[in-house]
Amino acid sequence: MAGRGSLGEFELIARYLAPLAADAPGAFGLEDDAAVIAAPADSDLVVTTDAMVEGIHFLKTDGAGRIARKLLRVNLSDLAAKGAEPIGYQLVLGLPAPVDEAWLADFAAGLAQDQQEFAFPLYGGDTIRSPSGLMLAVTAFGHVQKGGVLQRSGGQAGDDLYVTGTIGDAALGLEVKLKRRPVPAAAAAAFDARLHLPTPRLAVGRALRGTAHAAMDVSDGLVQDAGHIASASGLRVVIDASLVPFSDAARPLVAQDTGLLDVMLGGGDDYELLFSASPRNAASIRQIAMATGVAITRIGRLEAGSGVLVETADGRPITVGRAGFQHFGGGGACGE
Amino acid sequence: MAGRGSLGEFELIARYLAPLAADAPGAFGLEDDAAVIAAPADSDLVVTTDAMVEGIHFLKTDGAGRIARKLLRVNLSDLAAKGAEPIGYQLVLGLPAPVDEAWLADFAAGLAQDQQEFAFPLYGGDTIRSPSGLMLAVTAFGHVQKGGVLQRSGGQAGDDLYVTGTIGDAALGLEVKLKRRPVPAAAAAAFDARLHLPTPRLAVGRALRGTAHAAMDVSDGLVQDAGHIASASGLRVVIDASLVPFSDAARPLVAQDTGLLDVMLGGGDDYELLFSASPRNAASIRQIAMATGVAITRIGRLEAGSGVLVETADGRPITVGRAGFQHFGGGGACGE
Repeated sequence: MAGRGSLGEFELIARYLAPLAADAPGAFGLEDDAAVIAAPADSDLVVTTDAMVEGIHFLKTDGAGRIARKLLRVNLSDLAAKGAEPIGYQLVLGLPAPVDEAWLADFAAGLAQDQQEFAFPLYGGDTIRSPSGLMLAVTAFGHVQKGGVLQRSGGQAGDDLYVTGTIGDAALGLEVKLKRRPVPAAAAAAFDARLHLPTPRLAVGRALRGTAHAAMDVSDGLVQDAGHIASASGLRVVIDASLVPFSDAARPLVAQDTGLLDVMLGGGDDYELLFSASPRNAASIRQIAMATGVAITRIGRLEAGSGVLVETADGRPITVGRAGFQHFGGGGACGE
Repeated sequence: MAGRGSLGEFELIARYLAPLAADAPGAFGLEDDAAVIAAPADSDLVVTTDAMVEGIHFLKTDGAGRIARKLLRVNLSDLAAKGAEPIGYQLVLGLPAPVDEAWLADFAAGLAQDQQEFAFPLYGGDTIRSPSGLMLAVTAFGHVQKGGVLQRSGGQAGDDLYVTGTIGDAALGLEVKLKRRPVPAAAAAAFDARLHLPTPRLAVGRALRGTAHAAMDVSDGLVQDAGHIASASGLRVVIDASLVPFSDAARPLVAQDTGLLDVMLGGGDDYELLFSASPRNAASIRQIAMATGVAITRIGRLEAGSGVLVETADGRPITVGRAGFQHFGGGGACGE
């Protein structure tokens, strides 16, 4: 673990972070400036980085434990989209001075909880002072059999397009959080849980190796992310809006107000897998859904062309999901 | 490359960052959310993370190109201390809004320059909005033959203690920068260069595999970092202050004011290698210095005990280097 300065930092690392590295054999108890990762033979190492900033990606009042778990889960979701097995992570922890030790203890407890759940230990990182608020970044490591990584660019014309789980709950959670929309309390709680505690689809991603052509996780909104598969694969993605799966909590709301489609297909933070596969693999996809217990729904197709076309069940083009994902801070030119 | 939000971000990544990933085969042109690193067979992957915050680790006026190069070099220095060969890096780029595109162009040019010099391409990362100022973090990857990594903890009683290059120039550079101390212009320029553009000792680190027992890079100040070797190795480090190598620019200043020793042995940002080796390897160490063209100086020894003892040439204990490293922001409880 890097980190400079006063004794206070080293005490802090020792007290709250070193226990998180106990299961990482190459972390040297965070007493070194670097860690060693021994990936299995004949594997490729997958790396991904996601950062979160207070006031933009989260509010301090979201709860330290939930912030910690979301930080790990958004990175694990990227590993899932590659078909990778988690190895561990490096943490950049930017803290305002003076350090809120109770917050830090809760944050470390949240990390510990999800490290345990996903077998994903801390290897190292850096602690810094962040004058304007909490600044968090994780670089996650996973491994995948050599040459087996899933990519956004593997789509083929004629592929079916699939998505795991349900879409739009997190976007509705943000609507509720920003007090833009009143919803029943039970639904609000469900949406809030989806917003703050995504479920990385690791088992599905693993099972899709060799079956999916293009794959990614939905973090910026279904339509925008489908556009990434389209451009990386050099194809057009067609989404049948009537096939997009919504949760039991969301379905009655959409029935009342179809304007919600824009929020749900355009909002972010779903952390579901979006992937394409040949129609002749439809039975394999169903088996993967059964084996993992995760719903997988065909929502469209890939064809020659470019961009994303969203259409109704009877093939009329509609315009939804163009709002894109907006964090608390609004959209800056450098993106959040 | 992860990164959410407006189209502006994706344009920015494409324009300034994607060219930096051209030499990284598994970076997918930064069009994916994750990268693939194929480390050589029979190697361990070394990872290290260092973050830098505006106003604490650097001033925006330091120049975007120099900030970029220092960011890479402090991480490369950590790889050097492990005896690792650089592979590449993940970048977290936190930018205030609106983006200063001229600054960004210079920053990218600085990255490009040192990527070229050290064969160290960009693999991916995340761009975020950083409300209070620039926030930079790099997670660097290197590889080392399986089991060959250098550690802080390998020191043995009876080892000689060595350091590369010269110590204290960067600390003097900071003194000059903070207008704490007038020095001749030529010396000031030399110190400034050492402060802003450290030289990662990769060739020395590589050559020390199998020869050095404990190794690390000096980033927090010689005395403080010697303390890390002492605690990780369970030994006492004894430094003979009269043996510590100073540069031609620094030597006349120390001769005039021995109080400077405190700054030079306690200040940070040297990015020299500090390591221990058996006295019977003294000839090997001399050969490594010859072969790499880097001065390597014996400055002390490891013995039973704990902590760091700094003494004069005739063995009297002295108190120096206790100030520790202070960034612009002063020492916060979480350390910088």
